[in-house]
Amino acid sequence: MARIAVVAGDGIGPEVVAQARKVIDAVLPGVQATEYDLGAARYHRTGEVLPDSVLAELAGHDAILLGAVGDPTVPPGVLERGLLLKLRFAFDQYVNLRPSRLWPGVSGPLATVKPGEVDLVVVREGTEGLYAGAGGSLHRDTPAEVATEESLNTRHGVERVIRDAFARARRRERRKVTLVHKTNVLTHAGSLWARAFAAVAAEHPDVTTEYQHVDAAAMFLVTQPQRYDVVVTDNLFGDILTDIAAAVTGGIGLAASGCINPAGTYPSMFEPVHGSAPDIAGKGVADPVAAVLSAALLLDQLGHADAAARVTAAVGTELAGRTPGVPLRTAEVGDRLAGYAVA
Amino acid sequence: MARIAVVAGDGIGPEVVAQARKVIDAVLPGVQATEYDLGAARYHRTGEVLPDSVLAELAGHDAILLGAVGDPTVPPGVLERGLLLKLRFAFDQYVNLRPSRLWPGVSGPLATVKPGEVDLVVVREGTEGLYAGAGGSLHRDTPAEVATEESLNTRHGVERVIRDAFARARRRERRKVTLVHKTNVLTHAGSLWARAFAAVAAEHPDVTTEYQHVDAAAMFLVTQPQRYDVVVTDNLFGDILTDIAAAVTGGIGLAASGCINPAGTYPSMFEPVHGSAPDIAGKGVADPVAAVLSAALLLDQLGHADAAARVTAAVGTELAGRTPGVPLRTAEVGDRLAGYAVA
Ligand SMILES: CC(C)[C@H](C(=O)O)[C@@H](O)C(=O)O
Ligand SMILES: CC(C)[C@H](C(=O)O)[C@@H](O)C(=O)O
Repeated sequence: MARIAVVAGDGIGPEVVAQARKVIDAVLPGVQATEYDLGAARYHRTGEVLPDSVLAELAGHDAILLGAVGDPTVPPGVLERGLLLKLRFAFDQYVNLRPSRLWPGVSGPLATVKPGEVDLVVVREGTEGLYAGAGGSLHRDTPAEVATEESLNTRHGVERVIRDAFARARRRERRKVTLVHKTNVLTHAGSLWARAFAAVAAEHPDVTTEYQHVDAAAMFLVTQPQRYDVVVTDNLFGDILTDIAAAVTGGIGLAASGCINPAGTYPSMFEPVHGSAPDIAGKGVADPVAAVLSAALLLDQLGHADAAARVTAAVGTELAGRTPGVPLRTAEVGDRLAGYAVA
Repeated sequence: MARIAVVAGDGIGPEVVAQARKVIDAVLPGVQATEYDLGAARYHRTGEVLPDSVLAELAGHDAILLGAVGDPTVPPGVLERGLLLKLRFAFDQYVNLRPSRLWPGVSGPLATVKPGEVDLVVVREGTEGLYAGAGGSLHRDTPAEVATEESLNTRHGVERVIRDAFARARRRERRKVTLVHKTNVLTHAGSLWARAFAAVAAEHPDVTTEYQHVDAAAMFLVTQPQRYDVVVTDNLFGDILTDIAAAVTGGIGLAASGCINPAGTYPSMFEPVHGSAPDIAGKGVADPVAAVLSAALLLDQLGHADAAARVTAAVGTELAGRTPGVPLRTAEVGDRLAGYAVA
């Protein structure tokens, strides 16, 4: 039976993760879950972000379910670089999978798009680019200060995430992959991405392909999100585009994410895109849907496609039944989702 | 009298620039305009992108008015790096100014935003960051290939564009500046931006400030564009955010841009954000509003604030009078705008 590490984290993390676990337990009884105390609270208490011993323990699990980490009192970068990105890189989670659907029952911000019309997935590279942490500065706090950030891209890293995108496209109806980059300005990395994309595309004649610059893609995500099926892009572009995709499909409160190691050499990690939302933490009003959809991605990755589909369908039922303006209770949503998923 | 270099360029460039000149001539008779043949057409004919002699001649003008350059047959990067970015960097145009308004009469894509409610300006850094062209690759077309892009940021370059943003905020009603970066991941450059921003903010106690990560800003531009007044950000983030801002205010067909050298040591350059749109080129149906609004930015930069205001007001009249679905004729729009501007 699957062994899952649970990092509930800070703010609303514990509340939404509790619902995700409730739903997992309903569709797949017997999953072993071990809780790990990581995040802003632990950092404040002990100064520790991710001890090596904990990293080693996490590596022994089949998957990690994460709620949210961080709060405004932790300096920028500490938990991001020391925990989230550390895990993505240490566990070689090179596919950051972010599906976006405009669910029936959800009113998105776009006047021109009807529920059901948007169903896209961004396959974001997770272990390279500007997230590599290569950079530095000189002459700090003087007029001569200079600071650099370097985007590192390898054929190895780029090709494998593009392959994953094509494999996913083949399992979808429209079978279309859009490469997003900025080849006209970032000519070195752009050329690598474009050539790797062309090579993989040539092996997939049954998949339709297109290329867009990141600025154009950001625009089209707002004006015509319907046009996208699978989008593959680099780490930073993916960070931005997935938040736009979330915004046009009802907000990050509904957005799921998986940081996936497709080879399974290390555990994959699943977390809602939203943060710890300290303003509403502990009130029992956070929407657990993003955490539950992330749990569905987890189930799918562990080979339980049926259970994943039932959870996803449960979310559809839940959202279709919501009345706009009526406040929700986190635990009640979790109960309903667990119920729908096993019905 | 002002001496303007006109680069009409490719595709719809000449059509829309003709209207911008019509409007400039109406509000400021006597401007001297010299045409320069640059862009995809010249590149195909002569192999030249921007000869040094032309660069030197352009430097002798008060401003440059550019239509659009490029077409799909030119390899990515050639005109971007060789012409547009060359001019921005050579002429030290460190402020890329991009206002976005949701004009009455324009139906944007957002269900939640009413015309008149959005009025923001992005002050995008124009001479640094990932646009510096620092990068390279090794082992091309082998499995060992690596490609880099380096973001270069100086206190000099960052502070001056932040100062410009605060100066502009002081001339606006809300007096608010939002810094957008990704300080939690790009910690070196992010720290430089954040510290320079804090230092300049301390000198402007009358200006409200806030900070947002670029992914959050991309989202809020879609869900609450009303919240922004002046946004200051780096070169690449500005590229993406300004296209989102354009999308939520009716599209890049209405989006103006100025690449400004505030010190006036070299000419500033004004161009619509849209491209050369080869599909509709020569048909006389391109909307010249973005080019005309860019001309208004040009007039303002050259010290003709009154003329600029009249042109901007003329655009307001034009847009408020449009009937959705009725096709427009480029030259007729130009005639009307010139008429409104001098009425
Ligand atoms: C918290 C941050 C490091 C992270 C990222 O930039 O990847 C977040 O924005 C995300 O999208 O998961
Ligand atoms: C054409 C390209 C080099 C340019 C940029 O990236 O700056 C364009 O997208 C813009 O926004 O002006």
